[in-house]
Amino acid sequence: MTLAHGRPYLAIPGPSVMPDRVLAAMHRPAPNIYEGALVEMVHGLVPDLKAAARTAGEVAIYIANGHGAWEAAASNTIRPGEKVLVLSTGRFAAGWGVVFERLGAETQVIDFGKRAAVDLGAVEAALAADSAHKIKAVIVVHVDTATSVKNDIPGIRAVLDKLGHPALYMVDCIASLAVDRFEMDAWGVDVMVAASQKGLMTPPGLGFVFFNEKAAARQVETASFYWDWTPRANPALFYQFFGGTAPTHHLFGLREALDMIAEEGGIEAVWARHEKLARAAWAAFDAWGQGGPLEMNIADPGLRSCAVTALRIGGEDGTRLRRWVDEKAGLTLGIGLGMAEPDDPAWHGFFRLGHMGHINGHMMMGALGVIEAGLAALDIPHGPGALAAAARVIAEA
Amino acid sequence: MTLAHGRPYLAIPGPSVMPDRVLAAMHRPAPNIYEGALVEMVHGLVPDLKAAARTAGEVAIYIANGHGAWEAAASNTIRPGEKVLVLSTGRFAAGWGVVFERLGAETQVIDFGKRAAVDLGAVEAALAADSAHKIKAVIVVHVDTATSVKNDIPGIRAVLDKLGHPALYMVDCIASLAVDRFEMDAWGVDVMVAASQKGLMTPPGLGFVFFNEKAAARQVETASFYWDWTPRANPALFYQFFGGTAPTHHLFGLREALDMIAEEGGIEAVWARHEKLARAAWAAFDAWGQGGPLEMNIADPGLRSCAVTALRIGGEDGTRLRRWVDEKAGLTLGIGLGMAEPDDPAWHGFFRLGHMGHINGHMMMGALGVIEAGLAALDIPHGPGALAAAARVIAEA
Amino acid sequence: MTLAHGRPYLAIPGPSVMPDRVLAAMHRPAPNIYEGALVEMVHGLVPDLKAAARTAGEVAIYIANGHGAWEAAASNTIRPGEKVLVLSTGRFAAGWGVVFERLGAETQVIDFGKRAAVDLGAVEAALAADSAHKIKAVIVVHVDTATSVKNDIPGIRAVLDKLGHPALYMVDCIASLAVDRFEMDAWGVDVMVAASQKGLMTPPGLGFVFFNEKAAARQVETASFYWDWTPRANPALFYQFFGGTAPTHHLFGLREALDMIAEEGGIEAVWARHEKLARAAWAAFDAWGQGGPLEMNIADPGLRSCAVTALRIGGEDGTRLRRWVDEKAGLTLGIGLGMAEPDDPAWHGFFRLGHMGHINGHMMMGALGVIEAGLAALDIPHGPGALAAAARVIAEA
Amino acid sequence: MTLAHGRPYLAIPGPSVMPDRVLAAMHRPAPNIYEGALVEMVHGLVPDLKAAARTAGEVAIYIANGHGAWEAAASNTIRPGEKVLVLSTGRFAAGWGVVFERLGAETQVIDFGKRAAVDLGAVEAALAADSAHKIKAVIVVHVDTATSVKNDIPGIRAVLDKLGHPALYMVDCIASLAVDRFEMDAWGVDVMVAASQKGLMTPPGLGFVFFNEKAAARQVETASFYWDWTPRANPALFYQFFGGTAPTHHLFGLREALDMIAEEGGIEAVWARHEKLARAAWAAFDAWGQGGPLEMNIADPGLRSCAVTALRIGGEDGTRLRRWVDEKAGLTLGIGLGMAEPDDPAWHGFFRLGHMGHINGHMMMGALGVIEAGLAALDIPHGPGALAAAARVIAEA
Repeated sequence: MTLAHGRPYLAIPGPSVMPDRVLAAMHRPAPNIYEGALVEMVHGLVPDLKAAARTAGEVAIYIANGHGAWEAAASNTIRPGEKVLVLSTGRFAAGWGVVFERLGAETQVIDFGKRAAVDLGAVEAALAADSAHKIKAVIVVHVDTATSVKNDIPGIRAVLDKLGHPALYMVDCIASLAVDRFEMDAWGVDVMVAASQKGLMTPPGLGFVFFNEKAAARQVETASFYWDWTPRANPALFYQFFGGTAPTHHLFGLREALDMIAEEGGIEAVWARHEKLARAAWAAFDAWGQGGPLEMNIADPGLRSCAVTALRIGGEDGTRLRRWVDEKAGLTLGIGLGMAEPDDPAWHGFFRLGHMGHINGHMMMGALGVIEAGLAALDIPHGPGALAAAARVIAEA
Repeated sequence: MTLAHGRPYLAIPGPSVMPDRVLAAMHRPAPNIYEGALVEMVHGLVPDLKAAARTAGEVAIYIANGHGAWEAAASNTIRPGEKVLVLSTGRFAAGWGVVFERLGAETQVIDFGKRAAVDLGAVEAALAADSAHKIKAVIVVHVDTATSVKNDIPGIRAVLDKLGHPALYMVDCIASLAVDRFEMDAWGVDVMVAASQKGLMTPPGLGFVFFNEKAAARQVETASFYWDWTPRANPALFYQFFGGTAPTHHLFGLREALDMIAEEGGIEAVWARHEKLARAAWAAFDAWGQGGPLEMNIADPGLRSCAVTALRIGGEDGTRLRRWVDEKAGLTLGIGLGMAEPDDPAWHGFFRLGHMGHINGHMMMGALGVIEAGLAALDIPHGPGALAAAARVIAEA
Repeated sequence: MTLAHGRPYLAIPGPSVMPDRVLAAMHRPAPNIYEGALVEMVHGLVPDLKAAARTAGEVAIYIANGHGAWEAAASNTIRPGEKVLVLSTGRFAAGWGVVFERLGAETQVIDFGKRAAVDLGAVEAALAADSAHKIKAVIVVHVDTATSVKNDIPGIRAVLDKLGHPALYMVDCIASLAVDRFEMDAWGVDVMVAASQKGLMTPPGLGFVFFNEKAAARQVETASFYWDWTPRANPALFYQFFGGTAPTHHLFGLREALDMIAEEGGIEAVWARHEKLARAAWAAFDAWGQGGPLEMNIADPGLRSCAVTALRIGGEDGTRLRRWVDEKAGLTLGIGLGMAEPDDPAWHGFFRLGHMGHINGHMMMGALGVIEAGLAALDIPHGPGALAAAARVIAEA
Repeated sequence: MTLAHGRPYLAIPGPSVMPDRVLAAMHRPAPNIYEGALVEMVHGLVPDLKAAARTAGEVAIYIANGHGAWEAAASNTIRPGEKVLVLSTGRFAAGWGVVFERLGAETQVIDFGKRAAVDLGAVEAALAADSAHKIKAVIVVHVDTATSVKNDIPGIRAVLDKLGHPALYMVDCIASLAVDRFEMDAWGVDVMVAASQKGLMTPPGLGFVFFNEKAAARQVETASFYWDWTPRANPALFYQFFGGTAPTHHLFGLREALDMIAEEGGIEAVWARHEKLARAAWAAFDAWGQGGPLEMNIADPGLRSCAVTALRIGGEDGTRLRRWVDEKAGLTLGIGLGMAEPDDPAWHGFFRLGHMGHINGHMMMGALGVIEAGLAALDIPHGPGALAAAARVIAEA
């Protein structure tokens, strides 16, 4: 038998659960792209996006996924032959580095492994060694969706400042924007990259690059037409917002999502919700782990993202558990990413729980509840008291 | 703070959670009502509705809510002055009795209170006393949504048969159809009343009256035009299905809901899912009740419906808990119904959890999870181990 | 080949074209039916419905189609054995009469044929003959959807007043509400019946009965539970608005439709639009008729409804034309209704163009344009200049 | 007064009218992007896209608008410093040329003005002069959305072949795909660029680059990560289809649109419909022009696109007419593009009628009908018989 028939719950680390309101806002006739409701609405998106990113800088909106936003950021900032320092804490900073390389940049990668955050000492050493300031940009992900680590963004800025290193500081917040606290201006980030489908609760298809004056001043002449952020951030004509035809339906979806954030009380309320929900999940994972193989990939809670939790369980139990909760209870968990290759048997020993965006108390308890059911059904050893512990965290709301 | 921002979850005992597929099926241009897709589709609804009701009899579809379906059933079966035996186990059989009275019938009510099922001995006594067979119909609800009791439908038929009493046997399955096992023909039910918004997962607006040959043969000449079941069950022209304009959009929604039931494996699979989910809830309620005031209204599990569970908690804690899970965690519970008047302070000591229709494992665990959080947050004493107990039931899937 | 692939256009006389906004408003999760957004919203529907009907009286909302609203009106006003005067100008007054008969009333029908409005002299004669005031109600349709005739509602009231006849004056505005000018209070109508799916642009499933103090005072004790208008018009508890579970999704659709009427400038603006569009259609029909068999069923423009135009074309050309515009150009016309039986070859010589509700200039010109194309394609003789004539009327906007 | 209240009709040259089915297909929960329905569905898109383009070559799908697809095509084919021949017949080939320039290419532009197609003699002269074959690509738009000219795509290929010139032949079909006949392989096109929001009836947000073996073989090493067409056309892993996260909702919309094309009878039926509808429009424009200033921008019907017709009317009448039909009749026409600068008073003398995608007979007649009404209302002289002439073309269906 199965208990899956009911609302499907997609708890992968992106795309996140799309709110009914966002989907409804996208279900509309195509609008005129030269004047009227769309044109009037788009201008209002800009301040709200900046508020979500905590910046007084600029934002360029792209029809693209996160990889496109990566390329946009790279195209505007680096010339062929210039050097980029890549601080790798999982999968995505290295992926972004490849995008730079494909544009002709040289990369220097520091790999912090799959279970750790950026070590500031190592960053300082690398930058200090670059006395000629050949490194033109330092790139890092705020939250690595694969490992679920959260990096110390202001800490890296402090290292740059301490050394007086002029490199652009570029941060990927694709997984963390509108989830984990992020303060672009206060934390001294020059360029920030994000996308629509996670904390912003809008289907995949929009990428964002935020940039400050320093980054704007450094814009390179090799930026391509499509990626050029200048006309997008300061369009003389409406179509320049999007370098061509506007992504009409996504924009109405994004508008609704930003309205929802405002109605919740703004970005700080959104952060607080995610933190509490993540702590509920961690309480459960901790308890289960006391009596079995389940273990959070990031041991230090201070280094964990509130967007996703990567789990290690070993053997084939990651895949078994994912299958069970999907087929028996209607919950789709994320695969483990980057911990082992798909053709390696070890690949099956990992999974992830996404908890970003449109998620509330009963959804988190529902996800954890059927994970416990799955552990029981599959005879995977696990400690007691996990759900009660999670409920106690929820009770703090 | 609040953890409510996310998918709202309406866990009241109807309307139930509307599947996205059903809502999408209703989001369509108005169809032609004389020929084409609508006309072709409607004929297929009839066998699927009958399959859900386990009958080879007839079905009349009404644009109406459940109260309208009650009136339809009454209008076709009883003349002014005739007598109806009402077996009351909460709120709804008595309500149906009033509908009969308003059509001129005389009712004899046996009230079994708010925490018990129909007592067969009392039924036998009442019918045996009616040696003149003045009672033309016996009416009962399969599941009373207020008390969450489930009555012994074949047992009442056995009493009628034992006595050779010719009264029509009429059952309200508004809360139970496509939730609790119900076998119209095998259980000897002559007339059954249902509605769209609970187990059938379609917005309120459609009522159904199923009837067998015995009931058809007894149809009274006083049936009104709108309620007359004959042309609806056997229309010569399409509009007669609905006594006028078809409820176009609801019909497409119902079609989708019936398709979902078929895809799940048919009505028996639907029953099995509901039973398991209900047992998970009961396991949690039992555990909480060991250490505090929470108590299921119906003590005997064999008498509980799988559609809804009515709870007693006392004081103001019913209302407090409802408010907390709604405002803090996104879960809407049902008010207590019929246990006390709304202006009686005792009214706040009750609530109900709906678990009918489009509900699966993670939804049930999510609802229970935030109830536990609410009990903790509100310092309402409760026994431990409830969520783990519920998860163990889910694990049996 | 076909030129039908594109937006389907349903130009039958109901259901009318559902606005995207209305459908979107219905595409939502089920709401709580005890408190919250739904409950707050419903109260606001009442004044807006009354404004559309131009009455300070009461309104009862029913989950029902128009036939159900007919029965509601009848159930509240007439006792078995009482007499009703039926003024028949096509199909629907007589149909309503049957509903009264099935409730036990006696009807006296005056049939004005299929191409004429009510003759006031005949009404006066009938009422004058009823010196004993056995006639308790006079019923008439404002607009007969079959013949497209529009009756002189204030004229009939004048006859009643002239004779001092106390009968209730009951009018069916199912086809005309929010289309043709109708002034319930100013015109002295006691009871008015309407439905959602025509001028109110909401899917079939809601019926309305408006009634004034005189009708309220006369309410009969035989009104059934479901049809009783008193608790619906003045509910003590929310569920009494609907005699049970609320038609949740339809109500949100209706709210949106009423908002659209308000945004257009109110009911007078809606009437003016319909009148202009109808005149455009009539200009075209006049022109075509100059050179061929096409003829409007109602010769006198002052007696034509702005909701629908019934056409006579003869032979099989009604059906041929309907088929052609449907299959070749994406336009669905209405069948002729009530002019001949479906098994009579003459049946194929009629059709209707619905032009009620969510219809604007390009839609009307599109419908007329492909009718002209169809006439040409099928070699049906027709006069020239029809589309230009229609465009000239549109140009007056 | 206004006759605009009804279905809005957006008749601009893109985005086109989105079918309800496409919008409904996009209104769904986010799917898993690693396995399941989305993954299974995407593979089927590829052959259907190729069928629409009439190619056995490859297709790369981009989250991007048409400008992004331009850049994708350029990024894969041209190195900095290489030369591109731009055949400009309005606005868009020159725009594409700028994209090449921004990637470092040198362009040679032949401008054929705003009212003419590519002159093959001029192309031959330019290519013959390039005996060193420095020109690596010849770019042209099939249909220029601004001028509505349709270029002779096989004719240009014949020139290349005659001269044995090895340049890649790259064609922009953004406005013409699934509208005007286009045969990628038979016509010898090496690279073709398209987008979702016109003939493919899907909201803006997807771009497509089709390429043949010759183009694949010439792929340059400077292609950026995001634009690299190789992994997109032949992905080893699912995410490579889209260079990152899939555009989940758009893909389901595109699937529905491609199904609609198939249901219509395939791409040839779609072409035939567009041709007939365009000829209806041209018949009307011809008639109006006989008695007034209205004139089609492209005089030769053989050079006109079936996707859009650009009109010249002079003075302020373009803007006046657009405003009138929008505010009075619910039709939104396209602005004139590229004929004059927006701050030039002459700008107001142009407009465009889009007739691509989800358009059928009544829609075309509706658009033309209210244009005639507008001409009359605004006292703009125009010849008679336009609508009748258009209807005669529709009658040929």
